[in-house]
Amino acid sequence: MLARLFAPTLEVSAHCDLPCGVYDPAQARIEAESIKAVIAKVADNDDPDFRTRAILIKEQRSELVKHHLWVLWTDYFKPPHFEKYPQLHTLVNEATKLAGASGTKGELDAAKADELLAKIDEIAEIFWETKKA
Amino acid sequence: MLARLFAPTLEVSAHCDLPCGVYDPAQARIEAESIKAVIAKVADNDDPDFRTRAILIKEQRSELVKHHLWVLWTDYFKPPHFEKYPQLHTLVNEATKLAGASGTKGELDAAKADELLAKIDEIAEIFWETKKA
Amino acid sequence: MLARLFAPTLEVSAHCDLPCGVYDPAQARIEAESIKAVIAKVADNDDPDFRTRAILIKEQRSELVKHHLWVLWTDYFKPPHFEKYPQLHTLVNEATKLAGASGTKGELDAAKADELLAKIDEIAEIFWETKKA
Amino acid sequence: MLARLFAPTLEVSAHCDLPCGVYDPAQARIEAESIKAVIAKVADNDDPDFRTRAILIKEQRSELVKHHLWVLWTDYFKPPHFEKYPQLHTLVNEATKLAGASGTKGELDAAKADELLAKIDEIAEIFWETKKA
Amino acid sequence: MLARLFAPTLEVSAHCDLPCGVYDPAQARIEAESIKAVIAKVADNDDPDFRTRAILIKEQRSELVKHHLWVLWTDYFKPPHFEKYPQLHTLVNEATKLAGASGTKGELDAAKADELLAKIDEIAEIFWETKKA
Amino acid sequence: MLARLFAPTLEVSAHCDLPCGVYDPAQARIEAESIKAVIAKVADNDDPDFRTRAILIKEQRSELVKHHLWVLWTDYFKPPHFEKYPQLHTLVNEATKLAGASGTKGELDAAKADELLAKIDEIAEIFWETKKA
Repeated sequence: MLARLFAPTLEVSAHCDLPCGVYDPAQARIEAESIKAVIAKVADNDDPDFRTRAILIKEQRSELVKHHLWVLWTDYFKPPHFEKYPQLHTLVNEATKLAGASGTKGELDAAKADELLAKIDEIAEIFWETKKA
Repeated sequence: MLARLFAPTLEVSAHCDLPCGVYDPAQARIEAESIKAVIAKVADNDDPDFRTRAILIKEQRSELVKHHLWVLWTDYFKPPHFEKYPQLHTLVNEATKLAGASGTKGELDAAKADELLAKIDEIAEIFWETKKA
Repeated sequence: MLARLFAPTLEVSAHCDLPCGVYDPAQARIEAESIKAVIAKVADNDDPDFRTRAILIKEQRSELVKHHLWVLWTDYFKPPHFEKYPQLHTLVNEATKLAGASGTKGELDAAKADELLAKIDEIAEIFWETKKA
Repeated sequence: MLARLFAPTLEVSAHCDLPCGVYDPAQARIEAESIKAVIAKVADNDDPDFRTRAILIKEQRSELVKHHLWVLWTDYFKPPHFEKYPQLHTLVNEATKLAGASGTKGELDAAKADELLAKIDEIAEIFWETKKA
Repeated sequence: MLARLFAPTLEVSAHCDLPCGVYDPAQARIEAESIKAVIAKVADNDDPDFRTRAILIKEQRSELVKHHLWVLWTDYFKPPHFEKYPQLHTLVNEATKLAGASGTKGELDAAKADELLAKIDEIAEIFWETKKA
Repeated sequence: MLARLFAPTLEVSAHCDLPCGVYDPAQARIEAESIKAVIAKVADNDDPDFRTRAILIKEQRSELVKHHLWVLWTDYFKPPHFEKYPQLHTLVNEATKLAGASGTKGELDAAKADELLAKIDEIAEIFWETKKA
């Protein structure tokens, strides 16, 4: 199972022409899952100190989601990708908005976290399509 | 033009509805000026240790330029801005590419730094127009 | 005055002899404006989660204000500056104290933020005078 | 394919009882693949500035590999895991040593990067076994 | 008194063969003392904003304790140390667990901070023994 | 020996009235010793990659020295200290200048590192005197 899990990732570096050359939308997704998990834990716990820590951790994870998505947008995706996927700019912009401040009216709202995960999956789908091309 | 560019800074916070609410393209510009200054210094100095430090500092400044531009793109600019300025996604994407890895074939190339500064000024112009609106 | 304050930014890099060579008190000021904006938002909002986030963001901005002022004090200002402006050490020390822990008894106190902004403007005035010299 | 790729990760959060509760050895592996890719690129390129940047990026990736492995060792693995897998302490210690300073005599040595990847896969195998339990 | 305080530290660098070569368990201890001090202050203060800041600062200090201990475990301690002190892996693992998430059920619990300090002292004792050897 | 080493540090937190309340000039000193050790290692090693890494690590340690000294200057020292020790501002300013950019013309110069250590010891002496008072 492990081999299967990592297999497509290993291909990545071979086709890449940037200084580092390894990208993987899984990085953003893992952090977004943390956000979802934190929200679930807060829902079961009304200790104010726990809530403070949860908000702090969620804030850090949000920064990491945004960072990983920004890196994909700037360093991995190229003009031909933006031409082929005209929704890509908006998609990444909406995902980072969801991860960040704009998603915070519903701050600890599980639905927002699911929306974020869905956007990341859309980005990942495009990402893996560009890898196959 | 620069004076005009920075003048409204103080107004900013009053009209903003985000958690922090203060944005300023000057943050990206100051870091980009550092990049330009570093490149100029390296051109006058062929000590290899100095060059190593210059590359290191330039790398950090590049990260900061990218970060400040990403924050504008995600946290400040909203869908109506992207509608009104259809070039905005591409503009920010190109600026961050210039600041980052994609600008590094011409790594310590002053022309690349000037291009980056010009892109940041284009973004700043849009930014200040949206402030006046 | 603000316009005048920021106007020479572009000149900066030309006169500087340090590794990076670009300094600008605007960096500290923008972060201090964030602190002021955060305090204003908290005053209008009594959701405890929002308050937690506000304190967290304010804490980060305070660190950035301190960092930018420390960099000016250590890397930009030189012995002749400290001789010409004998109040400069105390001024920067008080500004960083206001930004940091010492300003926190009045933690989310708008008056403290205004005091901080005033100190930064005093530092900036000296900074721009040394640029003209 | 995407669904298959992320599927086992999603289960993770459900069984976890820590504050954040989402762990994934893929985080360390992606950074270690970057190290391998950087080394490969340096082998094809003898520009000294490129080499400086490669070492800098490799150093940062090494820190991230170490950090992700340390987090697994401290936050995810529990006494029963260390009992069941008596090699686990040594395995994580060796992997972090390989990622860090101890792996640097052969600094840009592809064989060291492969060794590191193999150790991370061993840790990941144990990790996923503990998930199934 | 100062000379006495720093004296043993100065020896350190002489015997070390790593890239940086200076280690000192005092780094972890100072941060752990901060944790203890923060907990004591919170016990005397029931302002919710102060409590939020205390949790935030404690969280950062915990990260630093963990980081300094991880660095000792990975970069300073070598296979012969782990052989001579078979409890060392578990000791460091428990100390980092206490500093981090696992110590947080008793989040602001002074007893946990004392336990952490005692573990760090055990590690330090081993550390200084290996220095004398 | 360990007890003796840590004894004076433990007193610290008791007399302090700041949010965290634990300060120790040892933090700056340990990082400055790293700088000295790095310089010594570079003197024995002319591999350019090693030199690049050494510069990178030295740069990071310099930042940490500066940071720890800045924190003492802003958060620990109070107006009565600056009155009693009129040289204190200049002393800390010179120490941070030595740690940073201004000390880099003699970039990997052991004499500069010794000067930095001497300045830190002067600051530490004042620090411990204020503790006794």
